[in-house]
Amino acid sequence: MKNTFGNSVTVTLFGESHGEMIGATLDGLAPGIPVKEEMIRTALARRRPAGRIATSRVETDDFRIVSGVFRGRTTGAPLTVLISNTQMHSADYESAPRLARPGHADYTAHARYAGCEDPRGGGHFSGRLTAALVAVGAIATEALRLHGITVGTHIASIAGICDTPLPEEPLTLTAALEGLSASAFPVLDEGRGEEMKAAILAAAGEGDSVGGVLETAVTGMPLGVGEPFFDSVESRLSHMLFSSPAVKGVEFGDGFALCEMRGSQANDQMAVENGAVRQLTNHMGGILGGITSGAPLRFKTAVKPTPSIFKPQKTVDLNENTSAELSLHGRHDPCIVGRAAPVTDAVTALVLVDLLTEAFGEHYLSPENM
Amino acid sequence: MKNTFGNSVTVTLFGESHGEMIGATLDGLAPGIPVKEEMIRTALARRRPAGRIATSRVETDDFRIVSGVFRGRTTGAPLTVLISNTQMHSADYESAPRLARPGHADYTAHARYAGCEDPRGGGHFSGRLTAALVAVGAIATEALRLHGITVGTHIASIAGICDTPLPEEPLTLTAALEGLSASAFPVLDEGRGEEMKAAILAAAGEGDSVGGVLETAVTGMPLGVGEPFFDSVESRLSHMLFSSPAVKGVEFGDGFALCEMRGSQANDQMAVENGAVRQLTNHMGGILGGITSGAPLRFKTAVKPTPSIFKPQKTVDLNENTSAELSLHGRHDPCIVGRAAPVTDAVTALVLVDLLTEAFGEHYLSPENM
Amino acid sequence: MKNTFGNSVTVTLFGESHGEMIGATLDGLAPGIPVKEEMIRTALARRRPAGRIATSRVETDDFRIVSGVFRGRTTGAPLTVLISNTQMHSADYESAPRLARPGHADYTAHARYAGCEDPRGGGHFSGRLTAALVAVGAIATEALRLHGITVGTHIASIAGICDTPLPEEPLTLTAALEGLSASAFPVLDEGRGEEMKAAILAAAGEGDSVGGVLETAVTGMPLGVGEPFFDSVESRLSHMLFSSPAVKGVEFGDGFALCEMRGSQANDQMAVENGAVRQLTNHMGGILGGITSGAPLRFKTAVKPTPSIFKPQKTVDLNENTSAELSLHGRHDPCIVGRAAPVTDAVTALVLVDLLTEAFGEHYLSPENM
Amino acid sequence: MKNTFGNSVTVTLFGESHGEMIGATLDGLAPGIPVKEEMIRTALARRRPAGRIATSRVETDDFRIVSGVFRGRTTGAPLTVLISNTQMHSADYESAPRLARPGHADYTAHARYAGCEDPRGGGHFSGRLTAALVAVGAIATEALRLHGITVGTHIASIAGICDTPLPEEPLTLTAALEGLSASAFPVLDEGRGEEMKAAILAAAGEGDSVGGVLETAVTGMPLGVGEPFFDSVESRLSHMLFSSPAVKGVEFGDGFALCEMRGSQANDQMAVENGAVRQLTNHMGGILGGITSGAPLRFKTAVKPTPSIFKPQKTVDLNENTSAELSLHGRHDPCIVGRAAPVTDAVTALVLVDLLTEAFGEHYLSPENM
Repeated sequence: MKNTFGNSVTVTLFGESHGEMIGATLDGLAPGIPVKEEMIRTALARRRPAGRIATSRVETDDFRIVSGVFRGRTTGAPLTVLISNTQMHSADYESAPRLARPGHADYTAHARYAGCEDPRGGGHFSGRLTAALVAVGAIATEALRLHGITVGTHIASIAGICDTPLPEEPLTLTAALEGLSASAFPVLDEGRGEEMKAAILAAAGEGDSVGGVLETAVTGMPLGVGEPFFDSVESRLSHMLFSSPAVKGVEFGDGFALCEMRGSQANDQMAVENGAVRQLTNHMGGILGGITSGAPLRFKTAVKPTPSIFKPQKTVDLNENTSAELSLHGRHDPCIVGRAAPVTDAVTALVLVDLLTEAFGEHYLSPENM
Repeated sequence: MKNTFGNSVTVTLFGESHGEMIGATLDGLAPGIPVKEEMIRTALARRRPAGRIATSRVETDDFRIVSGVFRGRTTGAPLTVLISNTQMHSADYESAPRLARPGHADYTAHARYAGCEDPRGGGHFSGRLTAALVAVGAIATEALRLHGITVGTHIASIAGICDTPLPEEPLTLTAALEGLSASAFPVLDEGRGEEMKAAILAAAGEGDSVGGVLETAVTGMPLGVGEPFFDSVESRLSHMLFSSPAVKGVEFGDGFALCEMRGSQANDQMAVENGAVRQLTNHMGGILGGITSGAPLRFKTAVKPTPSIFKPQKTVDLNENTSAELSLHGRHDPCIVGRAAPVTDAVTALVLVDLLTEAFGEHYLSPENM
Repeated sequence: MKNTFGNSVTVTLFGESHGEMIGATLDGLAPGIPVKEEMIRTALARRRPAGRIATSRVETDDFRIVSGVFRGRTTGAPLTVLISNTQMHSADYESAPRLARPGHADYTAHARYAGCEDPRGGGHFSGRLTAALVAVGAIATEALRLHGITVGTHIASIAGICDTPLPEEPLTLTAALEGLSASAFPVLDEGRGEEMKAAILAAAGEGDSVGGVLETAVTGMPLGVGEPFFDSVESRLSHMLFSSPAVKGVEFGDGFALCEMRGSQANDQMAVENGAVRQLTNHMGGILGGITSGAPLRFKTAVKPTPSIFKPQKTVDLNENTSAELSLHGRHDPCIVGRAAPVTDAVTALVLVDLLTEAFGEHYLSPENM
Repeated sequence: MKNTFGNSVTVTLFGESHGEMIGATLDGLAPGIPVKEEMIRTALARRRPAGRIATSRVETDDFRIVSGVFRGRTTGAPLTVLISNTQMHSADYESAPRLARPGHADYTAHARYAGCEDPRGGGHFSGRLTAALVAVGAIATEALRLHGITVGTHIASIAGICDTPLPEEPLTLTAALEGLSASAFPVLDEGRGEEMKAAILAAAGEGDSVGGVLETAVTGMPLGVGEPFFDSVESRLSHMLFSSPAVKGVEFGDGFALCEMRGSQANDQMAVENGAVRQLTNHMGGILGGITSGAPLRFKTAVKPTPSIFKPQKTVDLNENTSAELSLHGRHDPCIVGRAAPVTDAVTALVLVDLLTEAFGEHYLSPENM
């Protein structure tokens, strides 16, 4: 199941950076979910590079839904979205077939596919494919929204500059997540956001790039979803999060910081308030024993600095098997952390509709079941 | 596929903490792999608690291989290992059915399984089940060893006290990993190990517990294994690593530290030396674009402090739906980081035999193919 | 997923004919299903050979449920049943490691597993393993029964001698299925049953064996379960039915006989009666477009004659790679059609609980949801 | 995995009869397989209706490969084929949203998808989607051909009129299969073919339809591929064969006819000839214990008469829940058995590349490995 993921709701991904089009097929989602092109367009716009801090390759992301939707609603049959590639300057990558770009998959793909891979722009390995995930993720997000589940992500830090933490109280958090989901550079503290952008431009000015940390939260997830062991919510989410190019770390709740806490600090104590169980803290990120606890989900994703930089780098010529030096030209993002936020939202939504459908059946997410 | 994981080589896990036995079925491994009971016994011994820093519930871990082995070698048919439970003091957990232990799955399992779960000692959620993973992992480890692949884990830190970093040079690293794999408390710097143990005892003295970070490395993995996107090596490994109880973070290579690096620092540059491509650094942990690069795999796992502590905690009575205070008694580890090391080795080996079998076919790992 | 099958409710099978024990793990079934050892014992007794028409190897089928049941009900965690092997006369099979038995997997297994397979009694390929399927199938059957779904199988023919057809009217059919499920030699017309037994004994008297056809029906399946294409009810059922040793054909509804009908004869016309849609005939076996139609499921399974016969047969010596003649001795069934009936019931029930759980969620089959 | 099938090589299917386009994604096939548009065009032409015995809806089947191919060879990344729908006369089906067509999925789909399904021309349930399977199947067929594996299907019977049996000798059989694969109405005996066509026209003249039986054979499959139990070659093939609309029966080797044989007749005896094992007969259809025996694969598929007939039929109005009478108009095949032959070839090839890749690794089918 190389390019298909999910148990009950699956996504299949296809396409290459410089092919005619990319796409994704979403299968198993409840029939009856409203599909508005506008919501996909908005999600794609957030992923699209913009302004001085991003690559100047700007795709218009023209998309078509070619199956699975009838009269504006999902039918229950597989839903395929196609997105055209138009801004393909193959010349930019002319050297790519020979010189492996450090930090990219050029070298490993060459070995993996015995030299048959499409080398143009990273081929199937390109971050371009995440546009297709964002498109189907927008539909999954709508299904969740109809059932009171809100997903959102902020840039927790870029180049070491930190945003304010997410609020803890669920209603306030939900409002914050909704705001973040509408932003092209989602931070809670706009001042810190400006500092981050300055750091990006500083790196870009030196022909270099920066990375950062995304923090995602989800409110409204019902209690009791997930599995112990191999299908823990952490396992399923991390599997999908690590699918995104450039992600090199995932932590849930307080994550690595838990390792320096005592058990008495880390355990989320509980109480019954107004007849309902409430966790007094949320160090575990809303997951205990692999199963949702009813508290907001909370996790962080480490996004490495963009590997495409303009500084000269030592590398190898894949054809000649000799050492070489590479100086990249062309259009490259000095930072993709902001653009990775809508991708993270999308894959999170895709995993959650899968988990909910598996637990409660295909019709749980149907609009009739509200 | 709730308690079964893997594509080509799968593991199915079953059992409860206080049931008659636990077990695992390993399916799809090449025929002909030698299976010595001694190697399973040794692996289980490492996971077993020992000394003052561990619980006094010590299982002898008597195991039987009831299928899949004939004349000391795997047959290719499913291999089931059963491990008896003997040290079951149900009285220890008498309060468990009512008072949810903070940091444990009691509350979420109760919701998830509609009150039908086996509550004794955490039931199916117990860390006890990792013994079955260690047993089948020992067989996977042997299959890898026959093909020159070495897996090992050290305690990178406990309670903030850090071990020396792993060596970078592959041969030295391999030797270090072999040493670690024989140790019950695997550290490179024994002095730091003593400091860690002192910190554990200090926490235990206060009725509290501590957590820590494990770092795992693998040498000898062939270049070109894995997939872009959903079946990236990071996705598959993290899926399994997060299956282990208490794991709340996973990072590959420099992980979260990459987020504060520039691209020029993070990219692993390359050169051809003696006809072979060599990465000059290994910030990516041996994985690029989801595919192995030939450099050693390297990743870290965050293990939270043991949730079972003796300090009084606020919680809820699951039967009465009322607030309550819980004071645990009985036998509990003040730190499970050391015991988690062989579990991490085991699940890593299980994922790697799966990836190799999927890539190169079932007979790749056969001893005839050396 | 070699020895694991199912999407939402899975079965994992392990063991060998002459190993210490065989077993199966059932995972994903709703919590709360009552598990009585008696119902498993009864199902196993039906599969057990009895009387002159069967092998004299009679296992007592002592079984233990070692996980997944607490206080007599499923917990939702994986449920493992172990069945001991006791009647192992390895001497019976002494020649088996050398002379491939025609009609058995000896030759193909030897090639498939590179000579590492357990050759005793067919090893993992033995029909003995179906006892484990029957054991977990009995639990699935109980889950269905609680929701008004009845599975049953009759011997449609043995050696060309045909039983009366199953009644069509659902209530009468349900009663007939319940009767068949209690029988060790399930026929509707006992006179025809005696003729079949006589034919079996006649073949046995000549050192030969006979085959036959099983017909299975299911009443009470809800309308609208299944999928078009790859997960059609026919696809899922046939996948599992062909897993049973000796099955070489599967047909749904009128099956191959449909090929000689006109469309006007084959189509099941419909009408609304008392507000409900009723099919006027059931040539399609209760499945249209891969999805249940609300009519009873109906399908036939072709069971080949037992390959173990006493007549001398030409074969090969697997060790010497030479031609040879084989004359089997020992204990062998001259006909396994009757014993295959409870296996067919079991695998049918396993597929149906999987389909229902996938469609309606894990709690659909819970006793609370009646 | 509703519309995705396969373990190591997977197919994902999407589209509707009257949507903009249909398509399929083939994933996991070895890199380097030559992909010529001509071979896809030829396969699609065979599936296309032609002449008086078929529907007058004739699609040109314009297709595009939008990913996974670079410089005329597979890259190893997912390969998506899109096929445009152009001949959509929605008016033909205007009554379809209300009156369920007997023998079609209209009624079951309406229940399954809660009334949200695309009703035009059967929507996702349409036989139209098999064009996408034929397109990707043509690529799988080429991969097999490069390794000396030949798949072919003849019409064994239509309306009870039987073709000559397939030859048994492998070389003769291979030549026959190649001939059949080039034919739009694949029979061995052209005279019988004419009789079949006359029977089709006779039924069509009465506003009725006929069915038939397809027989498929495969030469060149290596010995030792497949699994006992759940992943038997029979299980995997039947799963996919029953995915095709209109298939209601599958039998391997002599199938149901085995049930009336004695064991001594059914068993395939063996001998060593010129150092190689040879089966003296092939009643088992090349599969023993779920594993290929090296003999040609041989199986039959029952194709029911086309459900779309012009005779008036009793049915129900899905909107009004009342009884009704349906008289179909428009373009419909009086027999789809001939058009089902290339579909059967395609799905057979898809299952075989999956089985071979799983057994021997992804590079086994690479052209370098010949």
